[in-house]
Amino acid sequence: MKACGIVTEYNPFHNGHAYQIEQIRNKLPVDVVIAVMSGNFLQRGEPAIVDKWTRTKMALAAGVDLVVELPVSFSTQPADFFAKGAIQILGDLKIDFLSFGVEEGSGVDFLKAAIWMIENESLISREMIKRETMNVPYAKQMEELLNQLAPSFPIALNSPNNQLGFAYAKEIVRQGLAEKIELFPIQRKAVGYNDPVLDEKTNIASATAIRKALLDDREIEAYIPSSSYSYLLEEVDQMVTWDDYFPYLKYQLLIQSEASLRNVYQMTEGLEYRLKQCIKEAFSMEEFLECVKTKRYTRTRLQRLLTYILLQLSQEEVEKNLNEIPVIRLLGFNKKGQCYLNEKKNQFQSPLISNINQKTKNLVKLDTLAGEIYTLGNKRLKKQDFTRHPIKFD
Amino acid sequence: MKACGIVTEYNPFHNGHAYQIEQIRNKLPVDVVIAVMSGNFLQRGEPAIVDKWTRTKMALAAGVDLVVELPVSFSTQPADFFAKGAIQILGDLKIDFLSFGVEEGSGVDFLKAAIWMIENESLISREMIKRETMNVPYAKQMEELLNQLAPSFPIALNSPNNQLGFAYAKEIVRQGLAEKIELFPIQRKAVGYNDPVLDEKTNIASATAIRKALLDDREIEAYIPSSSYSYLLEEVDQMVTWDDYFPYLKYQLLIQSEASLRNVYQMTEGLEYRLKQCIKEAFSMEEFLECVKTKRYTRTRLQRLLTYILLQLSQEEVEKNLNEIPVIRLLGFNKKGQCYLNEKKNQFQSPLISNINQKTKNLVKLDTLAGEIYTLGNKRLKKQDFTRHPIKFD
Repeated sequence: MKACGIVTEYNPFHNGHAYQIEQIRNKLPVDVVIAVMSGNFLQRGEPAIVDKWTRTKMALAAGVDLVVELPVSFSTQPADFFAKGAIQILGDLKIDFLSFGVEEGSGVDFLKAAIWMIENESLISREMIKRETMNVPYAKQMEELLNQLAPSFPIALNSPNNQLGFAYAKEIVRQGLAEKIELFPIQRKAVGYNDPVLDEKTNIASATAIRKALLDDREIEAYIPSSSYSYLLEEVDQMVTWDDYFPYLKYQLLIQSEASLRNVYQMTEGLEYRLKQCIKEAFSMEEFLECVKTKRYTRTRLQRLLTYILLQLSQEEVEKNLNEIPVIRLLGFNKKGQCYLNEKKNQFQSPLISNINQKTKNLVKLDTLAGEIYTLGNKRLKKQDFTRHPIKFD
Repeated sequence: MKACGIVTEYNPFHNGHAYQIEQIRNKLPVDVVIAVMSGNFLQRGEPAIVDKWTRTKMALAAGVDLVVELPVSFSTQPADFFAKGAIQILGDLKIDFLSFGVEEGSGVDFLKAAIWMIENESLISREMIKRETMNVPYAKQMEELLNQLAPSFPIALNSPNNQLGFAYAKEIVRQGLAEKIELFPIQRKAVGYNDPVLDEKTNIASATAIRKALLDDREIEAYIPSSSYSYLLEEVDQMVTWDDYFPYLKYQLLIQSEASLRNVYQMTEGLEYRLKQCIKEAFSMEEFLECVKTKRYTRTRLQRLLTYILLQLSQEEVEKNLNEIPVIRLLGFNKKGQCYLNEKKNQFQSPLISNINQKTKNLVKLDTLAGEIYTLGNKRLKKQDFTRHPIKFD
């Protein structure tokens, strides 16, 4: 059996995601589509609007055959570590193609760009270190540097989609998978990643715009498949945002000493004082971010750090996880997905985890903790790990 | 000027408290009544139903002349440490009388009992240590031991009121204040300390019964002075109970490792595992206490431990505070109270603190933290320490 992989968050699943699956089915000779999906905390340092189980149901109903979880140590990271974990899992799952949404660029363009970058890695890092003191976000600095060093670079890196696709391509090269996995970028329709506006002329909108509309109680039926829509309606009283966790974050920042905060993953020297100062006067996530932000820290970078604080992820623990090959945690599958697992599972390097029990709990320790904290955000949320089984979709 | 001291919580102020002040005014030759009052966390290991500022207003309106705060390291303790801090403060404030509610017994009875106990302290501790493995609460064991060793002991120790009064008397002896401070026990009218029922035939009810009625939205006007009643009405949307802090306690117990929990003050070996196990299945304070409790741990003892966890009070920090003479933190006063302070303040050993600022903040570090955590329980609660000034009552 042949498989195409997707790295995703489905927050929530929408027509753009359905279009990607349709393109894979129409254009690639594959039997199954496999999604590695962030669990309950996401790449931009925020909680998923609905939990990983609801998002798994949406994915399966829309034609994904197998959904596995990207562990929280990877899912709450900038593009490079996010891609590292996702490609390790998809590589281990023996996919033949990797599909991702881009603004423009072919699979060959992404591969060439990745190879050039890896060959010039030490030069690039030296140059980036030189620039580190400047108050410009990392991605922006990288773009400028590339314009200088490689004016005919095959892809543009000025959009989050292309940056993520590029990160996947680099990981495929780094992990020696370039011969095994073919890149299949799909040009996104109509909207950008972060576009906050619902365009009434199309049935495509960004997940950001859909979330905003959902929280404002506006109609979103046009922009997501009907199956996703009915799952969302079912779970609408279980939705969460960062604001639901803000009281816990505030409590943690009040109660924890500066010295202890310095053990949190990615805490930059000095920021702990600023966080503890700002939290005293902040009564919402917005007020707090407004107080803490500087040119050096983008909102996303701060949100990630606040996620690490909320979950109390330590430098040591996260780094240990980042250096290990992640486990394959099954969230759901249909019959084809199950056949694929049966056919390939002997080739997997990592343990395949269906249920969390005494034997497996230590393999997903941080994810189980993240699930426990996630459920504190809304009383209606059910347990996320112990007692849950992968969703079987007929 | 002559002063009578009271150790109190005023949670809330009620007719029984007013009766005590009336008795002091009628029977003692004093100019001022001074209350040392628990701040926002109380002796039975629970948050005060309304904050320390509201309770200070109630006290001043009902005729107390000066209110100072019993620091959280003392206020959330069993009778002995609670009494130690309170008597240190009142001793430093140069009171001439100490008044407290009892079931029965004269001032001389309490003093004799205290002297006997201190003389026999080492014998008693030896005997108590022998009994420590038995699953009987401390107070009950002490009562049995006294029946055996001193059958004609001058006071009964079978009520929380008498136990607290006895603890004050012992501290007065221990701190060498027996010549300076005369004990003035007042026989309580009609109800016991914990009596949960509002008796419609009298206008006296226990604070426990009044709190319960308040939370059940029943009328309590008959049982508290009209000034207290109007303050309570003003602050009724700012009331809190342990349930308002349960989400933070749950978060803390989920996120904190067993090893780190062991640093919390009074954590008994092994209990940290039980707490972490029970919290996963508990969705309210009642459910949690039900799961954790054993014969060995009374509800009050557990609530105190949970307060230490909520506030993250460490063994080291609390013990350091218990060994220092507490500061005199002013919460409120009237003109007579102010005259008294002016007359006596040169004799105080401890710093007299009116405002929390950069200079004084380290002297009330744990109390300021406790105040910050307290305000997380209800969005309408105002800041408790920084920016607050003692209430001046005309």
